This record gives sequence, structure tokens and C-alpha cells, in this order.
Amino acid sequence: MTPAAPVPPVVPARGLERFSINQMTVRQLPLPALVEECLRLGVPGVGLWREPVRAHGVEATARLLRGAGITVTSLCRGGFLTAREPDARRGALDDNRAAIDEAAGLGTGVLVLVCGGLPPGSRDLTGARERIADALTVLAPYAAERAVRLAIEPLHPMYAADRSVVSTLGQALELAGRFPPGHVGVVVDTYHLWWDDTAPAALARAGADGRLAAFQLADWITPLPEGVLTGRGQLGDGSIPLRHWRELMDAAGYTGPIEVELFNEDLWAGDGASLLAETATRFREQVL
Amino acid sequence: MTPAAPVPPVVPARGLERFSINQMTVRQLPLPALVEECLRLGVPGVGLWREPVRAHGVEATARLLRGAGITVTSLCRGGFLTAREPDARRGALDDNRAAIDEAAGLGTGVLVLVCGGLPPGSRDLTGARERIADALTVLAPYAAERAVRLAIEPLHPMYAADRSVVSTLGQALELAGRFPPGHVGVVVDTYHLWWDDTAPAALARAGADGRLAAFQLADWITPLPEGVLTGRGQLGDGSIPLRHWRELMDAAGYTGPIEVELFNEDLWAGDGASLLAETATRFREQVL
Repeated sequence: MTPAAPVPPVVPARGLERFSINQMTVRQLPLPALVEECLRLGVPGVGLWREPVRAHGVEATARLLRGAGITVTSLCRGGFLTAREPDARRGALDDNRAAIDEAAGLGTGVLVLVCGGLPPGSRDLTGARERIADALTVLAPYAAERAVRLAIEPLHPMYAADRSVVSTLGQALELAGRFPPGHVGVVVDTYHLWWDDTAPAALARAGADGRLAAFQLADWITPLPEGVLTGRGQLGDGSIPLRHWRELMDAAGYTGPIEVELFNEDLWAGDGASLLAETATRFREQVL
Repeated sequence: MTPAAPVPPVVPARGLERFSINQMTVRQLPLPALVEECLRLGVPGVGLWREPVRAHGVEATARLLRGAGITVTSLCRGGFLTAREPDARRGALDDNRAAIDEAAGLGTGVLVLVCGGLPPGSRDLTGARERIADALTVLAPYAAERAVRLAIEPLHPMYAADRSVVSTLGQALELAGRFPPGHVGVVVDTYHLWWDDTAPAALARAGADGRLAAFQLADWITPLPEGVLTGRGQLGDGSIPLRHWRELMDAAGYTGPIEVELFNEDLWAGDGASLLAETATRFREQVL
């Protein structure tokens, strides 16, 4: 067998040079269809999630994307590091090592961390944040050895109890700041941070400190659905000045990919290829 | 007609000296039934809402409560001061003057302000906050002349788009700080602020500056319901260390009433009198 010649990267369509589509945005598209539509539209990057990647196989996914010249801009997600019981903590560390291995196997340098909420029965946010720091002490070197950077994603305060006790960019930077910038960075996601008037200064600080690991976009629409997980708006449909946030990231020196990550039942109910095309159009109109 | 002798205040039951029940918590109870249950349980204070008060009549409500010796600890709510169009702004100012008059008529010195979200089509949080400040310039003196203090309530960031562009205690203090402490204060509501690690310092600052106008309690439970308005948990059912927040308020020098304000469809579906009794029990167990 002759080894395949290296495939050149996708030539991005005009305006989509930094655009990346998070797989969850178009979760109705199986991976091969997602790749096909990215090639058709000139989308150069995708953000992946562990569950669908595992279903397709990590190596097969890596081959598929490499063969198409598409960059994996991030893997979602590690984290959930707030458990108190030794067994649960060990399990979480093992799972995060597996996530790091998967990120490395996929050729992405960014593993997004959703840090975890309060353990059952606990009301101690501060303690939970300290357990995250403890876990990062173990995981960050493991990731760095594999050329993977852990990217702490502050989640909107409405998730503080059950998904992430890290609610603001300031908190994420405080945690990340205990580790080398190449090992631990932060994710700026407009959906989580848009309301916070202290976020722009934190973002500039993150840029100056070399902590900006990823940039994700979604718009804020109301009313929020039950459980508040699947109500993210298509770019331009909501309250967030997305272009302004892109400019803040530019000013902070971030030059990496810009991922669009929408979780939205209505969007998922439609055709995936059309949704991807519409998302690229909105990106050009609302973000550039 | 002989004028009625002044009625002495309710003798509070042990542990309920600072307890106040917000009317909305037990909205299944009509005002006369609420008063009857308060007397039975030794609840010395109630927080009122404009709509049910108007339905009963402002004067009739004032008479009913005064006659029972129950203190009105606050009136909810003024606010919604973010409109851009001159007509809408005039309407909002008029409505807030009416709310101030009603507060004065009820004999409470605290009008809670829910400041308002983004006007339709706007993405400018900063501009909206400035329009609130402009409106307060007009309203604060009007209120002060009537012995009513405007109390800015920061609402959880999940309401930033549609209810309150004031999301943190820090932002509320920044706004309040432009006016005399006796004219404009802030409301500390655990449901809105519990997640924020900068809130305790802001709370101490608010105490030092004489800005603590009201203290409200609700617990945080998940999953949040659609629209995220009616998912507040009974004291002790959720993630918030309520006693810790009461101690923070104590340390900041706050000695006023502590209102329990729950919006919860499940609680509303049950018997109102039992709910009030249970809330008083939880207050003793979880807060004192």
C-alpha cells in the first residue's frame, strides 16, 4: 500500500477563513455528511464532540477529516471535576485523560472543559472550584505532553448549580492563571459571557496573558426552554452584539478559529445542510 | 365616627421577628386570608405586589394591614426604565410615580425596582443602563419626598435580555451610587446573586455605604422551567447556603426584614396556609 499523499487544507470560501462549525450545531448531520457539506461550502474547520466522534470511531474520524483537509478546531468536552468522593474523582480524572488522548488523536490542540456543578447535596461553590484546580494540577501536564491545551469554559451563571461552578471569565482566568498559558487557557463563548460588563476587561487580560484558547458564538434568545440547554439562538436572532465581541477578541490579539455552537431544538428539526449554509451566511453578515 | 385606636404591631412568633412573607410566595391566598394566616402564625411582615394590591384597592389594603398590625416591608415593583421612545419613557415614568404613590399609601418605605431589559431590537446593555440612571434622576427625588426609597434589584444574568440589564450587585451599586443613600438603595436576593463570587464584597460595600434596602430569599433548584420565572425553590431545597447569606447581611450591618419570595408553580398548586406555615418553618431551620 502506498501511503496517501498529505491532503492540502480546504480552501475556505471568502469570509469563512476563520469560520468553524461546531458539530453540535448541525447534529442532524452524520460526520460524513458534515464533511461533504463543509467541502461544498468551503468551511475549513469543525469543532467536535466526544459522543458522536466515539460513535464514528476516533481514528476513523481523524482519517475522515484529515483526508478532507478539514481542521479540528476543538474537542468538547472534558471537565466535570467537582466530585468529592475518591472513586468519583478517580473516574473523572480517567475520563479526562481519555478525552485528552482523543483530542490528540484527532489532531486538535484544544480540549474544552465544562468544569462541573455542585456535587449532590453540596452548597459550596468555592470548594468545588478548588477541586477543579486540584484536578488540573494532574491533568494539565498530561495534556501538555500530548500537545493538547485544556480550555476552561466559563458557563452562564444559570448553570452554576448543575454544570459549571465557573461562571465568569474572571473566575476562569483565576483558575487558568495557576498553570502555564500553554497548558491551560480559556474559552470565550458569547452565549455565556455577553451579559457581563466585566468580561471585556477580563478578555483583554486573557489576550495579554496568552490565555485565549477558543472563541465560540451563539446568540441569546428568549424565552429560554425548560432545562435551559437547547435555547441558543442563530447568529443575529438575539440580543448579543456578535461583531462587537469579535472585535474585542481581535483587539485582544486572538487570531484563531471562530466556532459557531448552537444547541437549538428548532434548528435541529430542520435540514442540516441548509442549516450549515445559513449559519455560514449569518457568520458573514453578523460577525465579519 | 370615632377614629380607631392605633393597632399595636403583631407580636412575632419566636424566630420570626424579622421574617416577612412576600405575597407572591403564597399567591393562592387572597389578601384577607393572608392577613389571617399571618396573625395565626405570628408573621409580622408582608411584601406586596402592585397587581393584587390594586385588585383589592390600595387604601383597603393599607387599612387591612394597618388594622392587623402587620408591617408592609416592600412593594414590588417599579422599574422597566429602559425604553428608548419618548412616549414609552414618559409612560414608564408615570407608572413609576404611581408605584411610588402606592408604596407611600401602603406605608412602606421600599419600592423594589426591576429595571428592565433591552428594548426590542436593541443589543446595547450599556445604553440601557444609562437610561435607567436618567430615569432615577427624575424618580428618586419624587420618591424621597414621599418617604419612599427606590431599591434597585439586580436580577440573575439569565434575565439580562428581557427583565433587567442590571445583573450584579456591583452594577446595582454603581447605579445607586449616583444618588443619596436615603433615596436609592439595593435589594439583595439570594436567588439572583448566589453564584457570584464578587457579591459578598459588594454586599459589604453596600452595607458600609448604607445602601442595603431589602433582603429577599429563595433557593436555587434545577431543572429550570420554561421561561425561567417560576422555578424558585423553597428554602433548603436547593443549592444556596442561605444561612451564610444571612450572616453576610448581618456582618454588613443590615438589621431589616428578611422577605421570602418564591415563584413556584408546584408550591402555588398546594394549600396556601400550609405553604406559609412551611415557609416559616424553613426560615427558622435554614436561615436563623
